[in-house]
Amino acid sequence: MTIKPPFFEIGPKAFLYGEEMLKLAKAADKASAKYDVRIILTLQPTDIYLLAKETQHVLIFAQHMDPLHIGRGLGSILPEAIKAAGAVGVMLNHAEKPMSISDLNKAIKRADQVGLVTIVCADTIEEAQAIAHFSPNIIVAEPTKLIGTGQPSDSQYILKTTSAIKKINPAIQVLQGAGISNGRDVYNVIKAGAEATGTTSGIMKAQDPEAMLDEMIHAVRTAWDEIYNQ
Amino acid sequence: MTIKPPFFEIGPKAFLYGEEMLKLAKAADKASAKYDVRIILTLQPTDIYLLAKETQHVLIFAQHMDPLHIGRGLGSILPEAIKAAGAVGVMLNHAEKPMSISDLNKAIKRADQVGLVTIVCADTIEEAQAIAHFSPNIIVAEPTKLIGTGQPSDSQYILKTTSAIKKINPAIQVLQGAGISNGRDVYNVIKAGAEATGTTSGIMKAQDPEAMLDEMIHAVRTAWDEIYNQ
Amino acid sequence: MTIKPPFFEIGPKAFLYGEEMLKLAKAADKASAKYDVRIILTLQPTDIYLLAKETQHVLIFAQHMDPLHIGRGLGSILPEAIKAAGAVGVMLNHAEKPMSISDLNKAIKRADQVGLVTIVCADTIEEAQAIAHFSPNIIVAEPTKLIGTGQPSDSQYILKTTSAIKKINPAIQVLQGAGISNGRDVYNVIKAGAEATGTTSGIMKAQDPEAMLDEMIHAVRTAWDEIYNQ
Amino acid sequence: MTIKPPFFEIGPKAFLYGEEMLKLAKAADKASAKYDVRIILTLQPTDIYLLAKETQHVLIFAQHMDPLHIGRGLGSILPEAIKAAGAVGVMLNHAEKPMSISDLNKAIKRADQVGLVTIVCADTIEEAQAIAHFSPNIIVAEPTKLIGTGQPSDSQYILKTTSAIKKINPAIQVLQGAGISNGRDVYNVIKAGAEATGTTSGIMKAQDPEAMLDEMIHAVRTAWDEIYNQ
Repeated sequence: MTIKPPFFEIGPKAFLYGEEMLKLAKAADKASAKYDVRIILTLQPTDIYLLAKETQHVLIFAQHMDPLHIGRGLGSILPEAIKAAGAVGVMLNHAEKPMSISDLNKAIKRADQVGLVTIVCADTIEEAQAIAHFSPNIIVAEPTKLIGTGQPSDSQYILKTTSAIKKINPAIQVLQGAGISNGRDVYNVIKAGAEATGTTSGIMKAQDPEAMLDEMIHAVRTAWDEIYNQ
Repeated sequence: MTIKPPFFEIGPKAFLYGEEMLKLAKAADKASAKYDVRIILTLQPTDIYLLAKETQHVLIFAQHMDPLHIGRGLGSILPEAIKAAGAVGVMLNHAEKPMSISDLNKAIKRADQVGLVTIVCADTIEEAQAIAHFSPNIIVAEPTKLIGTGQPSDSQYILKTTSAIKKINPAIQVLQGAGISNGRDVYNVIKAGAEATGTTSGIMKAQDPEAMLDEMIHAVRTAWDEIYNQ
Repeated sequence: MTIKPPFFEIGPKAFLYGEEMLKLAKAADKASAKYDVRIILTLQPTDIYLLAKETQHVLIFAQHMDPLHIGRGLGSILPEAIKAAGAVGVMLNHAEKPMSISDLNKAIKRADQVGLVTIVCADTIEEAQAIAHFSPNIIVAEPTKLIGTGQPSDSQYILKTTSAIKKINPAIQVLQGAGISNGRDVYNVIKAGAEATGTTSGIMKAQDPEAMLDEMIHAVRTAWDEIYNQ
Repeated sequence: MTIKPPFFEIGPKAFLYGEEMLKLAKAADKASAKYDVRIILTLQPTDIYLLAKETQHVLIFAQHMDPLHIGRGLGSILPEAIKAAGAVGVMLNHAEKPMSISDLNKAIKRADQVGLVTIVCADTIEEAQAIAHFSPNIIVAEPTKLIGTGQPSDSQYILKTTSAIKKINPAIQVLQGAGISNGRDVYNVIKAGAEATGTTSGIMKAQDPEAMLDEMIHAVRTAWDEIYNQ
C-alpha cells in the first residue's frame, strides 16, 4: 500500500476532537480535492467513525493501536476495531506513545493482516533505519532537536534520511516533519526533495487553522509542480 | 451521579466490535427496557459514537481513558473526546489495563470535571477500600481468584466488600463480578444482596450471546423483585 | 516493624552512587549515632551491599523493588535479592517510579514476607489514605505542590495528613517531606508534630552536603527534645 | 569493545542471588580459566559489587539499566552506578524487560559513554537487523519460538542471523541462544558456526548446576577447537 505523493499529515493529538475536528476535517477534505494532495488525519479513536463517514478525500488514521488479537485485552485498541470504524491506516511509535521494538514489529504485521497503512515515527536516522527493517508503509523522519523550533529540516538532512531509509527498503515512503509553521516552510521542505511533510502545532496554534491548512496544502502543490510538472 | 439499581455491566473487551457489537448493543437496549434494568456496555473507543447514536437505553462507557488535558498527548485517550463521542462513563483500572495510583486518582477527577460516570476495578478488598478514597461512582469488586472459574462470589464476600466500601464512602455503588456464567449465577449474586453484577466471558463465550444476555437481565429483575418489590 | 522516632530519610536518587555515596553514608552514620536519630538511606541497588557492610547505624533501603517471586523476571529487582544484599527496607511508589495499585499492594505483601520495612510515597491526602489500606510501615506524605519550592509543609497539613492516615491504621508511621532545604525547615516540621522528615535536594544541592546533613539531623534532635524531653 | 570468542552467557534472572549466585559465579570463574572460554554473568544489580570483587575471570554484567543521566530518577538504574559497582557490561531489551526503540538507542549510547559492553536481545531476525543499527557490542539472536523447547537453533538459522547482522555492522558479535539444555546442545551450536551461546534454564534447572556449567563450557571449548585449532 502506497500513498500517491505528494501527501501531508495533520496530527491533532489531543488538541482537537469532535465537532471542531470535524470542521477541520471538512476543510482538509476540500483542500485535498482542490490541490490534488493526499491528506492524512491522525485522530483520537472516538472520532474515526464519524469523520470517515463525513469525508471523501482525506485519509483517516488512528493515532495508535496495540498489537493484540481479537479476544482479551480490555482497554487496548484492537486493529480490527479501528479498521471496522473506517480508518485506512494507523500511526505507531510517536514520541508521545513509544512502543517496544517487539510490539512495534508485531503491530506493523497486524496492520498488514488487517489492511491498515502504517506510518511510523523515528527520532533519529538510526531509528529510522532500524524501523525500516519492519517494512512499514511510511516513516516519519523527525529530528527531535527541531520539534517546536519553527526551524524545518534542511535539504541535506532530507536527502540523508530519505536515502538511508530507501537503501534498506526502497518501497518505504518518507515524511519529513518537525518545525513546519507556515506555507513557506512546507514549500521549502517539498522543494528540498521530500515527498511528504506535516504538522501539528503549525495548524493547531494558527489563529485561523483552516486558512493555514489551505496555505500549507497550496504550498505542497506549488513546490511539487515546480519540480515535477513543468 | 448514580445509576438506578439494579444494573449490569457487559464488557466486550477486544472480543466484539463494529457490526457484531452493534447487534449485541441493540439486544441489550431491548432487554434494558423490557426488564427495567440499567445495562452498562464498556466499548472499544471506536464504537462509542455509533452505538451511542443507535441505542436508547444502554449506558455507553469507554474501556479506559488517560488523565491528560486538552493539548499534547498523541496516542492517549482524551476524556473530553470520549464524552463528545457520546459516552456517559468510563471504566478504569481493569486488571488488563492497570493504572498507577496517582493516574487513577487524577483520571477520576478528570471524569468528574467532564461529566463521566466512573466504574473502577479492584482485585482485592484492600484495593476496593483504597480506591474508595478517590470517590469513584462505582467499584467493581472482583476477587481475582474467581475470574474464569465459573464460580461466583458468595453471599459473605458480597456483604463484606459492600460494607467495607460503603463504610469509607456510602455514595459508592458496588458491582459484584467474576464467575458469572448464566442466569442462575446472576440470580444468586443479586439475591445475595448485590445491586449490580456483570460478565464478559459469560456472554462472549455463550453459544447464543443475545439469548444469554436476555436470560441474565431477566434474572437480575427476578431476583431484585423477590427482594424489594413484594 | 517500626522505626523508633524521630527519623530522617535521605534520597540520593541518581545523584550519588559509589564512593561519593559511601562518604555521605559514613557521615550519616556518624550523625545518626551523635544525635540518636534514625537515618534511612534510599540507595541505587548496586550500592546496597557495600554500604550495608560499611555502616553501622544508618538504615539501608532500596529505592524500588518489583513484586515478583524467585524465578523468571530478568531485569526486575527481586525482594529476596535486596534483603540478601543487606537492605532492611524498600521505598515504593515514588513519583519518579509510580506503581499500579495492584503491584503496590503485592509489593508490600512481598516485603512483609521477606522482612523488609516499606516506605511508600503519596502525592495527596487521598492517596495517603488509599495506601494506608495496604498497611505499609511508613507513608511519605509529600504534597506535590510544595516539591522544589523550598517551602515546607505547615503545621495544619502535617496534623491533617497524620490524623487521616492513623485513623485508617494507627500503626503506620508518617514522614512529612517536601520543601526541606536547611536545618530551620527540619526544625519547623518536627516542631509542627512530625515524627520524621527527609530531603533529596536539600542535601544533594548543598555546597557541603555532609555539613548540611549534620545541621539537619541536629535540628531533628533539638526540635524533638523541645517537645518530648523537657 | 569486543569479547574474545568463544564466549558463553549465563542468565540467572531472578532464580539465583546472593550466596548461591556467588557459589555459581566461583564455579564459572574456575571453568572460564580451565577451558579458556569467556563467561558473561548477567546479575541482579545487588549482586554486582560482591561478585565483581570475588571473581577474577568471569565478566560481570547487569541485567538492565535505564538511559538516564546523573540527577533525578529515583528507582531507575543509573549506568554510572553499575559501572562503579564493578560491572563491565549490561544486557538490554530482554523479552522480560522490553525497551522502547528510543530508550534502547539512548541506553546503548550511554553504555558507550560510561564504558560498558552492551548485549542486546532480539526476538526475530528483523529485530536483530533493526538493533544492529544502534551498534551494540553483542546481539543475542534468540528465536522466541524455540525458548523452552529444549530444541536449539539449527545451523541454517545460525548462519542466516549471523550474516544478516554482520551485513549491517560486521563489528557486532552474535550470541546464539534458546533451547540449550546440555553440553551436546552447546557443542552443536558452536559447531554450527556460532561464536557464542548461553542459557538460563539449562543451568538453573539442572540437578547439579555447577556440574552442568562445567559440561557446557567444556563443550564450547571442544567444538571451538575442532573447528579452529586443528
